[in-house]
Amino acid sequence: MAKLRVKITVRLFTDEKCFGPGVAELLHRVDECHSLRAAAISMEMAYSKAWTIIHNMEQRLGFPVLEVKIGGKNGGGATVTPEARQILEAYERYCRRINEYAEGVFQEEFAFLES
Amino acid sequence: MAKLRVKITVRLFTDEKCFGPGVAELLHRVDECHSLRAAAISMEMAYSKAWTIIHNMEQRLGFPVLEVKIGGKNGGGATVTPEARQILEAYERYCRRINEYAEGVFQEEFAFLES
Repeated sequence: MAKLRVKITVRLFTDEKCFGPGVAELLHRVDECHSLRAAAISMEMAYSKAWTIIHNMEQRLGFPVLEVKIGGKNGGGATVTPEARQILEAYERYCRRINEYAEGVFQEEFAFLES
Repeated sequence: MAKLRVKITVRLFTDEKCFGPGVAELLHRVDECHSLRAAAISMEMAYSKAWTIIHNMEQRLGFPVLEVKIGGKNGGGATVTPEARQILEAYERYCRRINEYAEGVFQEEFAFLES
């Protein structure tokens, strides 16, 4: 049979979902684009959906996720707040650890497929 | 802020997705209902979707997932094949191990949220 591989998805919840792979990618793209609208477009997401994701995350975590500056010397734009960046970095470290563990024990549980 | 908790989803792929939480639940319900149609209805899934899931899994894994007996003393019905049951059991053991690990290291990565 074809070789199996594993994919793990990690989501964080308060009462409702507040952080996962989609939010993580959106925040990285805000870093690159300095704009939530441009970040959404770059991942083919509707701006209204991106806005809702950020808004829900702010409501559920209880702190601002994006800081938006209007105008100014560098033309303003959106930046990820330090609190949100701390969550993003913790999330990505956590995902790496879980993936390393999952890869490590995969063979133990699915070795019978090779025979 | 509200307390965070984690939810891990484990999916198995060959070239395409072939096993995950939805398939696992569907197989358990076939065990209970002895019928793919009744299993699908019990989880509010269209029968055509359930059939496609099973068919794709069989194509990708290269062995039959359900055995369907027509009529007979006990009225026939669908049963999960031994090969598919082995994958289901391995998948569930694997998910339990990953979840235990993920719960264990969650506090290490997200302790800063408590402060």
